[in-house]
Amino acid sequence: MKMSKMYLPTLKEVPSEAEVLSHQYMLRAGMMRTLTAGVYSYLPLGYRVIRKIENIIRKAMDESGAQELLMPIMHTAELWQESGRWDRFGPLMIKFQDRKGREYCLGPTHEEIITDLVRDEIRSYKDLPLNLYQIQTKVRDEIRPRFGIMRGREFIMKDAYSFDTDYEGLDKSYQLMYDAYVKAFKDCGLEVRAVEADSGAMGGSASHEFMVLADAGEDEVAFCNNCDYAANVERAGAAIADPAFEKEEMAAAEKVYTPAQKTIAEITEYLNVNADRTIKSLAFLADGEPILVLLSGDDELNEIKLANYLNAVELEAVVEDKFPEMYNSFAGFIGPVGIKEGIRILADLRVKNLKNAITGANEKDYHLINVNPGKDFEVEDYLDLRKVKDGDQCPHCEGQLEIKAGIEVGHIFKLGSKYSESMGARYLDENGREQLIIMGSYGIGITRLVAAAIEQQHDENGIIWPTAIAPYQVIILPLGNNDEVTTRAEVIYQELTDNGIEVLLDDRQERAGVKFNDADLIGIPLRLTIGSRSLEKGVVEARVRKTGEEINIKLDSVYEKVIGILKNID
Amino acid sequence: MKMSKMYLPTLKEVPSEAEVLSHQYMLRAGMMRTLTAGVYSYLPLGYRVIRKIENIIRKAMDESGAQELLMPIMHTAELWQESGRWDRFGPLMIKFQDRKGREYCLGPTHEEIITDLVRDEIRSYKDLPLNLYQIQTKVRDEIRPRFGIMRGREFIMKDAYSFDTDYEGLDKSYQLMYDAYVKAFKDCGLEVRAVEADSGAMGGSASHEFMVLADAGEDEVAFCNNCDYAANVERAGAAIADPAFEKEEMAAAEKVYTPAQKTIAEITEYLNVNADRTIKSLAFLADGEPILVLLSGDDELNEIKLANYLNAVELEAVVEDKFPEMYNSFAGFIGPVGIKEGIRILADLRVKNLKNAITGANEKDYHLINVNPGKDFEVEDYLDLRKVKDGDQCPHCEGQLEIKAGIEVGHIFKLGSKYSESMGARYLDENGREQLIIMGSYGIGITRLVAAAIEQQHDENGIIWPTAIAPYQVIILPLGNNDEVTTRAEVIYQELTDNGIEVLLDDRQERAGVKFNDADLIGIPLRLTIGSRSLEKGVVEARVRKTGEEINIKLDSVYEKVIGILKNID
Repeated sequence: MKMSKMYLPTLKEVPSEAEVLSHQYMLRAGMMRTLTAGVYSYLPLGYRVIRKIENIIRKAMDESGAQELLMPIMHTAELWQESGRWDRFGPLMIKFQDRKGREYCLGPTHEEIITDLVRDEIRSYKDLPLNLYQIQTKVRDEIRPRFGIMRGREFIMKDAYSFDTDYEGLDKSYQLMYDAYVKAFKDCGLEVRAVEADSGAMGGSASHEFMVLADAGEDEVAFCNNCDYAANVERAGAAIADPAFEKEEMAAAEKVYTPAQKTIAEITEYLNVNADRTIKSLAFLADGEPILVLLSGDDELNEIKLANYLNAVELEAVVEDKFPEMYNSFAGFIGPVGIKEGIRILADLRVKNLKNAITGANEKDYHLINVNPGKDFEVEDYLDLRKVKDGDQCPHCEGQLEIKAGIEVGHIFKLGSKYSESMGARYLDENGREQLIIMGSYGIGITRLVAAAIEQQHDENGIIWPTAIAPYQVIILPLGNNDEVTTRAEVIYQELTDNGIEVLLDDRQERAGVKFNDADLIGIPLRLTIGSRSLEKGVVEARVRKTGEEINIKLDSVYEKVIGILKNID
Repeated sequence: MKMSKMYLPTLKEVPSEAEVLSHQYMLRAGMMRTLTAGVYSYLPLGYRVIRKIENIIRKAMDESGAQELLMPIMHTAELWQESGRWDRFGPLMIKFQDRKGREYCLGPTHEEIITDLVRDEIRSYKDLPLNLYQIQTKVRDEIRPRFGIMRGREFIMKDAYSFDTDYEGLDKSYQLMYDAYVKAFKDCGLEVRAVEADSGAMGGSASHEFMVLADAGEDEVAFCNNCDYAANVERAGAAIADPAFEKEEMAAAEKVYTPAQKTIAEITEYLNVNADRTIKSLAFLADGEPILVLLSGDDELNEIKLANYLNAVELEAVVEDKFPEMYNSFAGFIGPVGIKEGIRILADLRVKNLKNAITGANEKDYHLINVNPGKDFEVEDYLDLRKVKDGDQCPHCEGQLEIKAGIEVGHIFKLGSKYSESMGARYLDENGREQLIIMGSYGIGITRLVAAAIEQQHDENGIIWPTAIAPYQVIILPLGNNDEVTTRAEVIYQELTDNGIEVLLDDRQERAGVKFNDADLIGIPLRLTIGSRSLEKGVVEARVRKTGEEINIKLDSVYEKVIGILKNID
């Protein structure tokens, strides 16, 4: 492609709308433009990258035995009502009516549609297993669309759905998808890690996320520095060390005056103790019911773990002035000892090992010291409720957990019978008995993957594309107003193009500086520069975008050398 | 692909929801399923055809110099308000609000979005010409979605938009697209005719439709049997022959008693004259204003021509009991002579040549005979208002027009400055002066094309795919429970597949009859049958779907022969 003809409006300035680097670079490199928050047009350069990623994923899916189809964007309300998710999705789902007043939504995901599609066609165990996928636009009305296409409202996904006779079959289908994902991301030239994940609103028994590690990621992932363990912090657990004071004798609880000392930080300073000697008491409304949650004072609550345990849709912190009425207590001085009767108390596992600890006394300006769980108060259940921290011990080995930021680009779920049960998707087994179809669901955020690739591989001058998903592999820069240069550039352009290499020829009437900057910005893996001086030497100057390595290539062997360099770039 | 693994639910019965043959066949062949009226899921077999057509069109577009991008499905109301089409599209456009109450629509077409996209980036004449296209899902809430994907509510289109400095440039861009369309349809293996068309709601100066000729088509097309002239009947004109009675002397108008003779048919029988001697007077409300339209009694009104002349959004026939008040007349006896003053009268060109004609007398049960235009009444304008008929003379030559049914699969428009003016899309010319960008718009209905292909090429047993868009080129049917047959079928399947031919292997445990029927139904161009008897003879039996031609192929030359046959099928 000749750049003089290409619709490639690059920008020098950083657009003010863009918070993160991938968003800035995609706008500056002329890859996309914003229609409105979270809704974008992909310009030719950007769309080439998207289509390359689509094709790599398509290939991996086809090779795994999955079959491509295409489901609608507009969904009838009835199917979502059948599964019970019409209301559960909340304002994330865009709803509308047609001219006859019938209700629809824009598909945020397709479990309902695919289950409806197959339930009338799958009759027998002989029709299974089956895996169907699509590459389709989805719409979710995010409350805060941001970071460009990292979290858009309209975005492209690959979603696949597996159907098996039983859970053993599901395990196999799940593993096939897991492997296909690993392959697809590798083929894209990206470093992606699979981590254990929470199943969230999708339901089901097991799930993994595929994470691109990058500072701009919205997700936190815990990795063991010793073994393979890796999990989204939402789900990650850690081994619990015995506290240093484990062997202490239990003392008798005692009330102390702690005027206006409300936070853990204040109380530890005031009483001159470590935070791990205090009990953090959190007051929550779980779907409206007041509960008390206890943690070691140096831990943070993982709300997802709590919500999962309670099967709660909504957790809400109790506002200060409701403490007296709901808990017979005061904000800042709440604790499990003597709390209002009937309040459910849940505690993190670490709380069980606490000794002679400090808690609020449920009296204004007073705390209790020497409080001991089991002796001074009882809890409904001890469970893993804490958010793992950098340096925690791995739950599987002696290693330590490291927390890194990641961008979720894929998510696979063992759904089990969640949808087949609510929507009646059954098959006849070998004995002619009706059984529920066992399902899995597998997504890749294709547009998000573009942004994640940029977040992972870039420098201060622009994008650094892996060759496999680069919009073009080579960019040729003829420099100066020189007919011989122009002709030679054309010849090389033609030779490479004819041999199947995707080449941009920067034939614009621009200064060398502009051409160099744009080439770096749009991130083409290999740059070939041709000027009158290089021609005198009988060479073109090649430069690898990723490493900065420079190589002079003789004019009579450009194609062979280019092929060789490209092969070794990633 | 092995059919035992493929998600290919064929049906024996004709589904009751399907009116036209293409719809029936697509459902029966397991190509698609209905979610709700006009909204479909495309199953693997159907989606393969769609993707083949997409790729053929993509290639033709790329070769023409157009560049692919992707615009959003959800559009902001503001842009459509800017162009003035937010209201004009009416209930065809699906509108909704996001969680913040902002208004959007689902894109029924993308002129507004593309104009907005380029208006900030195209600065100079050097940035032009430009042609941008996308392959994207569009949504139009058709009042009567029907005929399957021929007129769906959610459908896939290729739409392209050209941008030029002037009308000369537009002519070139338009011709490039015209040629690309001719090539793309030809490459699909379809017989498609370009015809002159009405520009309709798109606006602009010229347009062509690309028509697949097929009986099920909703459009009528007039073709000259002598020259190249072809036009949508909505737009088609015809040469007007002088009437046989042209030389007659004008007689004096005279009132005659015609009790209860209201229609042209009644009056011609009652007075024993030919219909071409009568004037058909039609009473319409044009955007609310009563007008009178005159035609020769043997002609039908082309409402599109009338609406275009009047620039009217809505034409509505006047109801009977409004005739006295609005026209001082009576339904069935209305005519131009003595009609209420101030009523606009428009007449078809053929009316001008009428002599001693018959019209209503604007009096109950009376007509006038010997009425002469110009002498007995005046009209505001004579213009082409009639619908051309089979046998009319071509407007360009001595040939005769034939009317055929067609399916519109493509439509190209010279938009001119319609959108660049309303939305302010300008560039600086060579003299630094601001000029309006001149635009064109070019669409192909991809999903409709699938149905049109089936309407054009099928028989009573099923679909007959052109090789280029067939989901698979070859289907292999091993017959009978015979290990040697199974093994041989596998070997041939592997050989053909390895050589890049797309092959279906019907390895299902089904009777021969079922396999033959399904192979015919899904329309694979070449069928290879292998049974124990054919193996004894050392051959496989090849059958060409289109012609029924049968060829025995020796087992040692299957690949070479198959390649040869496939090349010669279309």
